[in-house]
Amino acid sequence: MKLRDIGEFGLIYKVTAPFMDELPEGWTGVGDDCAVIPTTPGRVQVVTTDMLVENTHFILANTTPEDLGYKALAVNLSDIAATGATPRSAFISLAIPTHVEVEWISRFYAGLHELATQSGTLLLGGDTTRSPGDLVISITIFGDMAAADVKLRSLARPGDLVCLSGTIGDSPAGLRLLLDGVYDDTNPDHRALARMHHRPRPHLEEGLWLASHPAIHGMMDVSDGIDSDLRRIMEQAKVGMEIHLDALPISPQLQRVCREQGWDAAHLAATGGEDYCLVCTIDAQAFPRISQDFSHHFGTLLKAIGRVTSQPETFSYTCNGAAVTLAGHGFDHFT
Amino acid sequence: MKLRDIGEFGLIYKVTAPFMDELPEGWTGVGDDCAVIPTTPGRVQVVTTDMLVENTHFILANTTPEDLGYKALAVNLSDIAATGATPRSAFISLAIPTHVEVEWISRFYAGLHELATQSGTLLLGGDTTRSPGDLVISITIFGDMAAADVKLRSLARPGDLVCLSGTIGDSPAGLRLLLDGVYDDTNPDHRALARMHHRPRPHLEEGLWLASHPAIHGMMDVSDGIDSDLRRIMEQAKVGMEIHLDALPISPQLQRVCREQGWDAAHLAATGGEDYCLVCTIDAQAFPRISQDFSHHFGTLLKAIGRVTSQPETFSYTCNGAAVTLAGHGFDHFT
Repeated sequence: MKLRDIGEFGLIYKVTAPFMDELPEGWTGVGDDCAVIPTTPGRVQVVTTDMLVENTHFILANTTPEDLGYKALAVNLSDIAATGATPRSAFISLAIPTHVEVEWISRFYAGLHELATQSGTLLLGGDTTRSPGDLVISITIFGDMAAADVKLRSLARPGDLVCLSGTIGDSPAGLRLLLDGVYDDTNPDHRALARMHHRPRPHLEEGLWLASHPAIHGMMDVSDGIDSDLRRIMEQAKVGMEIHLDALPISPQLQRVCREQGWDAAHLAATGGEDYCLVCTIDAQAFPRISQDFSHHFGTLLKAIGRVTSQPETFSYTCNGAAVTLAGHGFDHFT
Repeated sequence: MKLRDIGEFGLIYKVTAPFMDELPEGWTGVGDDCAVIPTTPGRVQVVTTDMLVENTHFILANTTPEDLGYKALAVNLSDIAATGATPRSAFISLAIPTHVEVEWISRFYAGLHELATQSGTLLLGGDTTRSPGDLVISITIFGDMAAADVKLRSLARPGDLVCLSGTIGDSPAGLRLLLDGVYDDTNPDHRALARMHHRPRPHLEEGLWLASHPAIHGMMDVSDGIDSDLRRIMEQAKVGMEIHLDALPISPQLQRVCREQGWDAAHLAATGGEDYCLVCTIDAQAFPRISQDFSHHFGTLLKAIGRVTSQPETFSYTCNGAAVTLAGHGFDHFT
């Protein structure tokens, strides 16, 4: 069987099933943003690891080394945010093609160090080795948190409202401007979208704040696009999803650029990926108070975009109250 | 500057220097087998991470998937052994070329799982992604131990005896038989050497035992060959080394194969690498008692092969009491 026939998520579950049965009570392994390891009473360590491969996740010609270092750390910190933890330390391994200059590597680490300092993450080590082919980056991050606050995808409940901690679609729009060759450096909207693609902000403060609320049940970060990511929550929590495309939070700059380029903003926002805000499911009764407090605290919206239903494997979209379908899905590395 | 001009170790120190100054008291980062993170009073967590790249560290045609999975975990467990810790959990990330079959991946995980079970290591997660080029494996392992028992390379002291927990040269001889095309599957010596190359045994029990002895100061695992590895101890501890080539522990099968193939056993043993036994430095007065206890406990020799000197940057070999030089060095991924 080829990988493209089973897909990334099918592969992970197939090969790791024998290990997952061995986990002690209170431990979480494969299948969520982070693994959860009990440490002292009431506290847990959370761990996440991600591998970024040249020409799959990034193209060297399209990024500065500083931006790539920054983003490589950001996407891992986003998983820490999605669990509600505080990042503590990171390990970075690189497989480096021989044509890459030492100067490039130093600038990569400078970008990484910038975000590490901002987020209070200590860089503790890693590995560097020669690659006969592509550049590969592997990052592992540890965080810690109160055991009672851990948010997992599996905790989403029917009736919960599905909410986003920020706008979506900016990052994929920035990438599309660059890939389509229509990026205009003199256009502030273009620059803003490209920056969201190159330097996504992990929602660490939002994750910590949201995790402290028991009425917030499931949480994950938006990495592959909500059309793909919410299906992960569905699988883990055995629930369904009903998402209102007209409720998706779209930034003013994305709206302007979509008009300018003739793009469908809702489609881009739902399927694009790499936005790295958080999506969480909240008890419907608690939502008004929590969203008000969120706005007071962060000055931004916690936007409800739909609800969790009790129909497993059923994902539906509406627009202005009518059922609609969305062509195409989020990103799967193997398909 | 090109990577080949600075080398793997030069690169690591150059790019990570800004981070290492930020570490709190009691933490250890880049530059040893494991990073050390204080947890509860008197205990530390140790972490190691390694990246293995196709055609740099392994050739798919020369290994079974089970052996590769086993070895990928073994080389990381060896770093845990070198610090004296007990392994607890592991994360595995794979960048997978599209031509690799799901069956291959399952067999890879089966080999990995075999050693994970043997060593009491829980597999907690990781990442899988598509690679447009080579197969890349990144593994991160956590262990824990008493803070007082942590063995670092920097702890070697002048006057210490340099000792090995096992024989060296078997693994590189096995590789050479395979690469030279002279491997004979009907020859038991060939099979033994090839097995040492494909399924190295991390010296976890030895590491734990050695770490409990305060008279043992510096410790690391033999991964690049002692000619290269002992220079790492020299750099970290600011000491010199005097190694007796005639004292290197060489297995009977390696002696026979070297006679058969016309190879220099001492050269292969000193420079070959991938043996994954431990090299430690022991207070000379305590050595007779410790080596006797070691033999009683493990039924194998803790072999003294030379001594630590007070002359930094001075590495010398002797053979039967006379100074000798050794052509060639251990392995550096960038040179």
